[in-house]
Amino acid sequence: MTRERVRNLLTQVADGTVSPDHALDDLTREPFETLDFATIDHQRALRQGYPEVIFGEGKTAEQVVAIAERIAERHGGFLATRLKEDASAALAKRFHEVEINTLGRTAHLPTTSPPPVGRGTLMIVTAGTSDLPVAEEAAVTAGALGNRVARLTDVGVAGIHRLLARKDELFSAAVIIVIAGMDGALPSVIGGLVRVPVIAVPTSVGYGAAFGGLAPLLAMLNSCAAGVTVVNIDNGFGAAMAASRINHG
Amino acid sequence: MTRERVRNLLTQVADGTVSPDHALDDLTREPFETLDFATIDHQRALRQGYPEVIFGEGKTAEQVVAIAERIAERHGGFLATRLKEDASAALAKRFHEVEINTLGRTAHLPTTSPPPVGRGTLMIVTAGTSDLPVAEEAAVTAGALGNRVARLTDVGVAGIHRLLARKDELFSAAVIIVIAGMDGALPSVIGGLVRVPVIAVPTSVGYGAAFGGLAPLLAMLNSCAAGVTVVNIDNGFGAAMAASRINHG
Amino acid sequence: MTRERVRNLLTQVADGTVSPDHALDDLTREPFETLDFATIDHQRALRQGYPEVIFGEGKTAEQVVAIAERIAERHGGFLATRLKEDASAALAKRFHEVEINTLGRTAHLPTTSPPPVGRGTLMIVTAGTSDLPVAEEAAVTAGALGNRVARLTDVGVAGIHRLLARKDELFSAAVIIVIAGMDGALPSVIGGLVRVPVIAVPTSVGYGAAFGGLAPLLAMLNSCAAGVTVVNIDNGFGAAMAASRINHG
Amino acid sequence: MTRERVRNLLTQVADGTVSPDHALDDLTREPFETLDFATIDHQRALRQGYPEVIFGEGKTAEQVVAIAERIAERHGGFLATRLKEDASAALAKRFHEVEINTLGRTAHLPTTSPPPVGRGTLMIVTAGTSDLPVAEEAAVTAGALGNRVARLTDVGVAGIHRLLARKDELFSAAVIIVIAGMDGALPSVIGGLVRVPVIAVPTSVGYGAAFGGLAPLLAMLNSCAAGVTVVNIDNGFGAAMAASRINHG
Amino acid sequence: MTRERVRNLLTQVADGTVSPDHALDDLTREPFETLDFATIDHQRALRQGYPEVIFGEGKTAEQVVAIAERIAERHGGFLATRLKEDASAALAKRFHEVEINTLGRTAHLPTTSPPPVGRGTLMIVTAGTSDLPVAEEAAVTAGALGNRVARLTDVGVAGIHRLLARKDELFSAAVIIVIAGMDGALPSVIGGLVRVPVIAVPTSVGYGAAFGGLAPLLAMLNSCAAGVTVVNIDNGFGAAMAASRINHG
Amino acid sequence: MTRERVRNLLTQVADGTVSPDHALDDLTREPFETLDFATIDHQRALRQGYPEVIFGEGKTAEQVVAIAERIAERHGGFLATRLKEDASAALAKRFHEVEINTLGRTAHLPTTSPPPVGRGTLMIVTAGTSDLPVAEEAAVTAGALGNRVARLTDVGVAGIHRLLARKDELFSAAVIIVIAGMDGALPSVIGGLVRVPVIAVPTSVGYGAAFGGLAPLLAMLNSCAAGVTVVNIDNGFGAAMAASRINHG
Amino acid sequence: MTRERVRNLLTQVADGTVSPDHALDDLTREPFETLDFATIDHQRALRQGYPEVIFGEGKTAEQVVAIAERIAERHGGFLATRLKEDASAALAKRFHEVEINTLGRTAHLPTTSPPPVGRGTLMIVTAGTSDLPVAEEAAVTAGALGNRVARLTDVGVAGIHRLLARKDELFSAAVIIVIAGMDGALPSVIGGLVRVPVIAVPTSVGYGAAFGGLAPLLAMLNSCAAGVTVVNIDNGFGAAMAASRINHG
Amino acid sequence: MTRERVRNLLTQVADGTVSPDHALDDLTREPFETLDFATIDHQRALRQGYPEVIFGEGKTAEQVVAIAERIAERHGGFLATRLKEDASAALAKRFHEVEINTLGRTAHLPTTSPPPVGRGTLMIVTAGTSDLPVAEEAAVTAGALGNRVARLTDVGVAGIHRLLARKDELFSAAVIIVIAGMDGALPSVIGGLVRVPVIAVPTSVGYGAAFGGLAPLLAMLNSCAAGVTVVNIDNGFGAAMAASRINHG
Repeated sequence: MTRERVRNLLTQVADGTVSPDHALDDLTREPFETLDFATIDHQRALRQGYPEVIFGEGKTAEQVVAIAERIAERHGGFLATRLKEDASAALAKRFHEVEINTLGRTAHLPTTSPPPVGRGTLMIVTAGTSDLPVAEEAAVTAGALGNRVARLTDVGVAGIHRLLARKDELFSAAVIIVIAGMDGALPSVIGGLVRVPVIAVPTSVGYGAAFGGLAPLLAMLNSCAAGVTVVNIDNGFGAAMAASRINHG
Repeated sequence: MTRERVRNLLTQVADGTVSPDHALDDLTREPFETLDFATIDHQRALRQGYPEVIFGEGKTAEQVVAIAERIAERHGGFLATRLKEDASAALAKRFHEVEINTLGRTAHLPTTSPPPVGRGTLMIVTAGTSDLPVAEEAAVTAGALGNRVARLTDVGVAGIHRLLARKDELFSAAVIIVIAGMDGALPSVIGGLVRVPVIAVPTSVGYGAAFGGLAPLLAMLNSCAAGVTVVNIDNGFGAAMAASRINHG
Repeated sequence: MTRERVRNLLTQVADGTVSPDHALDDLTREPFETLDFATIDHQRALRQGYPEVIFGEGKTAEQVVAIAERIAERHGGFLATRLKEDASAALAKRFHEVEINTLGRTAHLPTTSPPPVGRGTLMIVTAGTSDLPVAEEAAVTAGALGNRVARLTDVGVAGIHRLLARKDELFSAAVIIVIAGMDGALPSVIGGLVRVPVIAVPTSVGYGAAFGGLAPLLAMLNSCAAGVTVVNIDNGFGAAMAASRINHG
Repeated sequence: MTRERVRNLLTQVADGTVSPDHALDDLTREPFETLDFATIDHQRALRQGYPEVIFGEGKTAEQVVAIAERIAERHGGFLATRLKEDASAALAKRFHEVEINTLGRTAHLPTTSPPPVGRGTLMIVTAGTSDLPVAEEAAVTAGALGNRVARLTDVGVAGIHRLLARKDELFSAAVIIVIAGMDGALPSVIGGLVRVPVIAVPTSVGYGAAFGGLAPLLAMLNSCAAGVTVVNIDNGFGAAMAASRINHG
Repeated sequence: MTRERVRNLLTQVADGTVSPDHALDDLTREPFETLDFATIDHQRALRQGYPEVIFGEGKTAEQVVAIAERIAERHGGFLATRLKEDASAALAKRFHEVEINTLGRTAHLPTTSPPPVGRGTLMIVTAGTSDLPVAEEAAVTAGALGNRVARLTDVGVAGIHRLLARKDELFSAAVIIVIAGMDGALPSVIGGLVRVPVIAVPTSVGYGAAFGGLAPLLAMLNSCAAGVTVVNIDNGFGAAMAASRINHG
Repeated sequence: MTRERVRNLLTQVADGTVSPDHALDDLTREPFETLDFATIDHQRALRQGYPEVIFGEGKTAEQVVAIAERIAERHGGFLATRLKEDASAALAKRFHEVEINTLGRTAHLPTTSPPPVGRGTLMIVTAGTSDLPVAEEAAVTAGALGNRVARLTDVGVAGIHRLLARKDELFSAAVIIVIAGMDGALPSVIGGLVRVPVIAVPTSVGYGAAFGGLAPLLAMLNSCAAGVTVVNIDNGFGAAMAASRINHG
Repeated sequence: MTRERVRNLLTQVADGTVSPDHALDDLTREPFETLDFATIDHQRALRQGYPEVIFGEGKTAEQVVAIAERIAERHGGFLATRLKEDASAALAKRFHEVEINTLGRTAHLPTTSPPPVGRGTLMIVTAGTSDLPVAEEAAVTAGALGNRVARLTDVGVAGIHRLLARKDELFSAAVIIVIAGMDGALPSVIGGLVRVPVIAVPTSVGYGAAFGGLAPLLAMLNSCAAGVTVVNIDNGFGAAMAASRINHG
Repeated sequence: MTRERVRNLLTQVADGTVSPDHALDDLTREPFETLDFATIDHQRALRQGYPEVIFGEGKTAEQVVAIAERIAERHGGFLATRLKEDASAALAKRFHEVEINTLGRTAHLPTTSPPPVGRGTLMIVTAGTSDLPVAEEAAVTAGALGNRVARLTDVGVAGIHRLLARKDELFSAAVIIVIAGMDGALPSVIGGLVRVPVIAVPTSVGYGAAFGGLAPLLAMLNSCAAGVTVVNIDNGFGAAMAASRINHG
């Protein structure tokens, strides 16, 4: 609530247009809904342009459905990520039009008033086939948030000509998400080629000294291409959220 | 070199407008300059809108000056970061108009044709006084790259009202850089308030289990505010580069 | 045994009231009971106000029941935590009045003479829905130890207004336990708002660079709110024990 | 500002006792002071019973003195920790009555209205001689915050009789801070003896696999004595803040 | 494409031997094949002497077979590693002549024109029985790439005479791969005995402070025998690739 | 083979008592046996007083039985540790008199000529019930190697009186193995009480910041009781081997 | 105090031979001395055969001298380790007969009644020249505690014949301390050759992935030679204490 | 000593040509020289083609000179690495013809009979200017060991065209050493382009999450270009030793 809105309200109280009780409510009411196990932030759509997204990890199928119902009621739709199989099935049963993405482990029911479409194309690049689940999570999220999405698959740096042959596509993007495990080298090469924002997503692909994604995470944080930013390991969702903020700027 | 430019060139060779030798040069020439200890990437200004930035760490004062001379010759100016005192002094002696920022450890000589100014204001927020050197590095870099810069200082979450009182300023920014050490909590709070891109910079401020910035780095990578991206510990420069890419999109 | 008690005992030996053999026993007897696989510390109830609590991890169902029987025999009841399903079932079968908490993985049989009730309310705050199992472990433990318990659920810092709207409840607590995974930012915000003791519990919720709870653990240890103390990852039990010590001071 | 105070204020606006402009100020004014490099949280004394404490690390002597002046002006005194030698000297020169503790690296100027004295004695126990600087930081902080302080020095577990001989002193404390490096075993033994709250402080004393205090930190987080809580490595200040909150409960 | 080939091509365009369109294709065509989930690098055989090897981890059986079909079509055969059981079975069903190595988790269908045989013998040494799966992966890979392979099994340094008795075999090798878990000491002893290249492979054999192979990895990187190089934990494949490069030099 | 034995052998060759061929064999023969997957060190019994012990982890039941057969053939018996259930069953079926210890995961068939009994009693102390499997592995190993074994169970430092009440037993031991997880504090207390060698075994008991036994491992390496040595996490076998070497000195 | 001694004392109180006050003193007196900054454990010589050793790290020269004076007064001599130069100088000035070892950073003043000499020779083996300071600390400590000491220097495993040529010396030792940095491989080879106890000391020698001694520490904890025990990085003192306990068994 | 040589010797003893004493010496003499602080491995030149190299770290200038004298006496020259300034100066004063490389911290006195020159060119590639000291250490070592050395400087992947423009030089090398800090991405790109062996050297260049070279080390171990091997952080010497072994194969 801005200072201006407070001033107006107080002026209205002073001239009797608004009763003290009403203003009291207005100044102190809760813009959220409380379940037994969750406090849903309904104001988020207003504040950030999209309703709260349901993070499926550590929630039962029942909890996921209950939260989805509350959000769908207010906004007409919802997005859920990191869904276990039973939660996906429960959502599919409850919401007939929900779109399930098995590889990306997401469920999406478009909201009544979908977000406006962003400025340009959001390009999702992967270094290897094993990075695809993370790419799918990013793609579904980006689509739900109102972005045109393009993909470039399996163009890791050990065969650098595969990437260089696709430079025109890279140059046409407004924002680029680069997803890579192992040595995490791809964002450095791409970050050095383009001038648009590059968001790097390390993946837990690999074994041994990959340490569950630590190796590419550190490599990306130390990228020699200035201007690359990084999100958590396997966090395709977060990368898409960040890219969408940029694309709607 | 785009496919179109190659096609044109080949057509010109075919019709004799351009000689094979000339086309050969054009297709294969090196867009960089080789010193004994460095290979300067002159094409970068063309490719990414700003000449290569000099990273002072691990370079002698002589090396820094020599590289600065080559870049200044081509572009009229340069930006250098992470300068040791003797390198700053050497640059100040060699280039009379260079601007030295002692706290941020930068040197900046504006280029002949400065980059265009970005869309909006780039806001730099710090959690504590000890985060200021990183903020200065970010501010000088952002300015050099053509961005309007604003600052919000010492608004860490342990006194949350300090931050909430400045919400209007936060809401007016196009991109926000949040710099914090210790618990790295500030980007989560800000990321939940605004809808523009937020770039988090962990700092090595603190002691003990801060482990040189590891604590805030991990916290920021795990931010519960979706859409926050992260750069390396103390990397004010990288955050500004990324923010400038966004602000010029 | 205090110096005073030793003095009395010796005086009694000197004047013949107590025999040397009896005093010998008194000075050297073992205040515990030895099973094949455990040494039960029966003196703990005397020393710390509550009998030894059974830690279920790494114990078979048979071992858990055998220890529970010995403690129940002396104290009329017991508390057991971290129970695997078979251990819970075995306890439920053996003790008809035991209270099983499935989410918190605890079993509680109230002791004959329950501990006195503490000074104020012990508030348990969680950042997200996935933190609830740890909160339940804390709540059951705190109740068993004689504390009035209140809860505040899913008020993570990415929607800071959810927390600020509940400040009155926070201000009414005598001790606050704050449970959070991911960025572990919530204790810093709460620690900065209130003046009562705040105990932070990191949880293993999250993925990737959360590293099984390392991220929130480090964040909490580096909290910028002075006066926050920390317990082990997922250790709702320990947090409740500490809070109860405070609440009974 | 509580709901009650808002209700009162609005009622006064409604009946004309208070003007809208005045209420506006009251509802929105900034309870802090902004320097170039710091935002001082003057409301903290009101909120938490003691003014903001100055953390000396990463601040210049000039910055420390400037902040100290602002706080002393409002509250008559201040506490500063982690002071470099030049900052201590500068404070001693500027404030004649300030008390410098060289070992603990603190400076303390008692505030005009010192905080009320807490319920009981705050006992500070150290395992070895090398832990004394951290103990001094804790003792000065606790004293400034209004606590009676007692000490028990060099009673590490390798000579357990040194500790057992002092049990009466331990039993007389209201809160105990246990400071130990190396194996961090002391809090487990003390936590098992007493029934009052125990706050453990790991120190960076030691070498090799102590890893700068990581070894005792992990040991303390895994204490087999339930109810021990932990603060950051070498954080005597934080332990005293937490203990004082408990002691004033 | 070398500078010479470009010169020739341009000369041919100039004299009309080659049309601009044909040259355009030649200069810009993609030497790879794109599936939905993979971009196969067919040029690799030309560039590095062997077609792209299929890495089975993180790929479905269907994806593995589809890629194997494309590579077999071009090169007559393929090599696949890290195969889950269902992928091995699917390959065995689809390609009747494929050789499955269960212990090494590989599948190999010899290519039409197998690579030339290398200069000398590639010796694979293991410290213990548990290192055999990694040794098998290395042996199959080395064989597929055209190397004579010998083995020396279970000659760890705790019984140093077992190794010393086999010195003649060691001295006859052209390259040695040493595979060891636990203390990773074997490469240091062998590296000090021989003068040929030694490639060390740490394994995830062991428990506790072996930390999944971290212990032997660090030991090998710090080998006191100069000239030992290291690959990732359990990476028998990579060791064989490197050894084969050396053996074909 | 000692210098003396070489001298004798050569003298015998010189005077014709021994043929050069025979001496050649003696000087160069292999004191081990080679299976496909293992090289059994038969000389170890001679060198170290007990045949090679079979480490079950990473070996198939068939491999374990095959190695056991070879060792039993030469020495009449064997010891095997870390056995999976199927390997235990296979050994029990093949060797009717083998002693299986399920908790300790060992199999022991006494050798024909058992090792001589050591000087004193080997005491095995555990901090908690969950440490028992490691204690069993140690006890079986120590027994097989010819040591009298005593046990002290569940005497962790949180109830220090349980330990102090058993001091006489501690004082009667020749070597003490102390097994503890969590804070790993017990070896420090015991090491400070006794004057005999103390070997500490950290266990992977615990959760969260125990990090699979890292916490007690570091604590034990940093023990404030001088003279405590440490073995790998959960390595009851190694502790018993070391203790037996001491006990037979 | 044993149970027998308590029984005797009580009998004496009962028959009037000893007054209650005297017995009270006997049962409760403090067997240590309290300085401002230290609690000296005078009972240690009785309990463990040698007075408390002064650990110089983190103590001022004044503190070191004061503690040394107290110990020398009771026991006629002392041992101090990890001495900074000023502390060594202060001790040399105060005690004319003290023996300073600069490389090992120790000071030793033989006690009036030196400890009895142990059973056999304590052998100290080093892998490289850089390990010598740790070896000296061990040698001085072992000598002070009553052990015959021998040395074997610079016999790392990269030149295994250097070690094998000295086997007779190894075989003549009663206990062996093996000191090594980098790959930490030497204890495994020696542990496999001899049958006496082997204590491994990792050193912080090396760089990069040696991580301050972590690499050899982990290697030694995972030694494939059963029966090797380990002490902290650079802890020559602790190794000697442990070896002396063994040698006096 | 080979089996054949032993057979010959024994035959000679049998027929009286060689005395038992002489043969005894031959079979047991020490092929090394013992100083107080070092055991010089003179046999290494015979065994591995080059005398022992002096590692300067942790050695005094006097020790370095003494070892150098012994090696120079036998072999006419020596190589020393990681020299502190005083050790370099002492060597320069003692050996007038020694070649000091300040940047690489080496000293080289060519041996009387230099090693034969290897098969091809050893190419040393660096990603940035700050990697040059490691490159110099590698270049001096490689030269001393008999290799033709070429260099490619400052061709990091953020400006990939700098590298691609130099492909012909890369293709002409027999072995390639790639030196890089930060993201360690360069070896992956080069390893994918060439078919010769690639040895990767991570450097400690960088800050923050580079963790002293851990980031590029992990990236290189996880290189997506198969056949890349890795040495320790900053280990230019080891990389050159390995490359020279390959180049002399």
